[in-house]
Amino acid sequence: MTIIREAEILCVGTELLLGDIINTNAAHLARRLAELGIGVHHQSVVGDHPGRLREALSLALSRADLVITSGGLGPTYDDLTRETVAEAFGLPLEKDEAILAHIRDHFARTGRVMTPNNERQAMVPRGATVLDNPQGTAPGLIVTDEANNKTVILLPGPPRELIPMFDELAMPYLKARTDRVLFSLNVHIFGMGESTVETILRDQMIEGKNPTIAPYCTAGEVRLRVTAQAEDEKTARDMCRQTVGHIMESEVGAYVYAVVPSTEGEATLEGVVIHELCRLGKTVACAESCTGGLIAKRLTDIPGSSAAVLGGFVTYTNEMKMRHLGVSPETLEQYTELSEQTATEMARGARVATGADIGISTTGLAGPGGGSEDCPVGTVFVGISSSQGEQVKRLSLSPNRKRDYIRTVAASHALEMIRRLLLSET
Amino acid sequence: MTIIREAEILCVGTELLLGDIINTNAAHLARRLAELGIGVHHQSVVGDHPGRLREALSLALSRADLVITSGGLGPTYDDLTRETVAEAFGLPLEKDEAILAHIRDHFARTGRVMTPNNERQAMVPRGATVLDNPQGTAPGLIVTDEANNKTVILLPGPPRELIPMFDELAMPYLKARTDRVLFSLNVHIFGMGESTVETILRDQMIEGKNPTIAPYCTAGEVRLRVTAQAEDEKTARDMCRQTVGHIMESEVGAYVYAVVPSTEGEATLEGVVIHELCRLGKTVACAESCTGGLIAKRLTDIPGSSAAVLGGFVTYTNEMKMRHLGVSPETLEQYTELSEQTATEMARGARVATGADIGISTTGLAGPGGGSEDCPVGTVFVGISSSQGEQVKRLSLSPNRKRDYIRTVAASHALEMIRRLLLSET
Repeated sequence: MTIIREAEILCVGTELLLGDIINTNAAHLARRLAELGIGVHHQSVVGDHPGRLREALSLALSRADLVITSGGLGPTYDDLTRETVAEAFGLPLEKDEAILAHIRDHFARTGRVMTPNNERQAMVPRGATVLDNPQGTAPGLIVTDEANNKTVILLPGPPRELIPMFDELAMPYLKARTDRVLFSLNVHIFGMGESTVETILRDQMIEGKNPTIAPYCTAGEVRLRVTAQAEDEKTARDMCRQTVGHIMESEVGAYVYAVVPSTEGEATLEGVVIHELCRLGKTVACAESCTGGLIAKRLTDIPGSSAAVLGGFVTYTNEMKMRHLGVSPETLEQYTELSEQTATEMARGARVATGADIGISTTGLAGPGGGSEDCPVGTVFVGISSSQGEQVKRLSLSPNRKRDYIRTVAASHALEMIRRLLLSET
Repeated sequence: MTIIREAEILCVGTELLLGDIINTNAAHLARRLAELGIGVHHQSVVGDHPGRLREALSLALSRADLVITSGGLGPTYDDLTRETVAEAFGLPLEKDEAILAHIRDHFARTGRVMTPNNERQAMVPRGATVLDNPQGTAPGLIVTDEANNKTVILLPGPPRELIPMFDELAMPYLKARTDRVLFSLNVHIFGMGESTVETILRDQMIEGKNPTIAPYCTAGEVRLRVTAQAEDEKTARDMCRQTVGHIMESEVGAYVYAVVPSTEGEATLEGVVIHELCRLGKTVACAESCTGGLIAKRLTDIPGSSAAVLGGFVTYTNEMKMRHLGVSPETLEQYTELSEQTATEMARGARVATGADIGISTTGLAGPGGGSEDCPVGTVFVGISSSQGEQVKRLSLSPNRKRDYIRTVAASHALEMIRRLLLSET
């Protein structure tokens, strides 16, 4: 049996070209192919147009062993993928009675009238493998030219039809046609910028290396995806672990808050914090001014957070800071609400008012308005209070950053302070 | 000046090929180009690979007048878009001192160390137009070959940087190079499902009509984009207004919370609520259980919200509900925390404790765990309290929905209740 090494994803649909829908199919297929160790170097989108679809398909087939298409399998005149693929492989279309029965049955069950054009969906290129579609009428197809090692997998456009069909029916077919395994570890970093990380790890980040190290940025965070290719998963996993070991030994290591296999999705600061709080049986309460509830929101995004989060206060007014957090009028008078002192008293207040083990606070300027010479927009004081004592960090984020960025990064610093406190306690 | 009729979207990034991120940039750019009446027949994705990027770029330039790229403008070794486009146009790269100053300034302000590789971001193809990037260090670029009517617009990969840069800087550039005018109104709907909206408006939604009506869904909300094409903007605007008039007269009208020109971006429930609160000089305070700070977070996402939001309470424990919101032990005992009575007392408590005009509350089950026969996951009680009285809405969202969906929709219902209360007061 021929081995598939290179694939391309070809999505068909005018609605994608108009931006009416976001191409989530491409991302899903790409992730699955990466898991299989099948390389993907091109994704493309074309409309329901015979000429352009034909060109796109032949270009893709000239570059890859496998082309996966989504869309264009419907009953209407502009659904052309089936015909175009059959033509490209020089195969005649034949009516498949089993599919026709399935379509008739589907219409009967959903109480809809079957129109003649639906019969087109029962046409199959000779010798093609049919992939059943319990979610709809259009079946998927696998068309192969073994002699030239070219395969096209045709999938329907709607994600709720495409995803189960690919995962349950196409994946086993492809697993039997790969001889490599890719394994990835996501290394989550907070507190060090992308270019600094890249400067430190440059030697290990050269393209073509195995394992590869690819950096991605999100607000204030850097994620490194370490991917190894090997004959079997254990070898690939060990290769990734070794590379991650080198990263942990470098200056970057001190800023790594999680290392997770890509198959387990992505880690978040809030997820790590909730996990640690639950593990240690500790509780937290928030006192938020400029983050306005974002810290509490992120912590409670995590299922099971109710075991560790007692609650929080959003104190936008000094009145509330005094009344509910016990911040002293003198402090607000002498240092204003934008001060280390206020942040400290807020964190302490949240802890005292709720009986939590840890109190975390933010007070600052998220903008766009306000700010002064010595306290510009982007200035945020993050305070933490626990039985171990109290601490405040002053952040100076770029005043040009958007309000949501400043709030997100400030909240992330607060979460990171909780994480480090918990680390120091274990 | 040459007219641009055909465009292609070329997204650069290995993370797209690996399916680590979903290509939302392509959808945003496609929608905007459709507004401009610029046709898009191809979208493609390539990795950070010089050879393949060069091929993809030249293929795109051979088919279209305009190519818009996203990604590959970062400081790291694998960011190659700038160099590749300069090469395709036979232009030398020159260091732009203004950009360099911006980058230096950016690092200085954020107190980070600027590494040498960041200087690469200051290199510009001779004669290119620079698009400022207040959100980051990498500027966008417009490179044009007037003689052959070929233009490439280079945009950074992060949507947070790409979207404002394209909408605010590239759109005016492109508007001046189209001979048709498109005008769009976004109609924001909350409280009515997409299929109901479509059923009611079917006759007006037939494709090819002018104005067109395109529906987009987000958690619990439906947005209709009404787009008219005409010789001049006034005509197009009047056509849109007339269509929106018909929508407002239909059953859908009662669920419309905002109608905004697409050029002014998108409305949000929280934005409308803050605007109304400020206009009426009213204040609000939140008491959140299952939404865990999300309502306060969304309200305070809005610049200027400090004039209307006094603050809020995240009360995850009954202890906090009693102590800080004055929920009575009897109520919790008799009806439990998942009840209309508790929601009412929470909303009242937030109002009393802060002196706000309006108190809003949520208590419910966001899952995934917990739930019972008569109170399954997805059950949320939303309470509101004001001088006009008190009211509670019981939501029964599908238990199969994700935690973040349930929390988001519950928060949206809370915001909608505030909006309707304010409407009734004016």
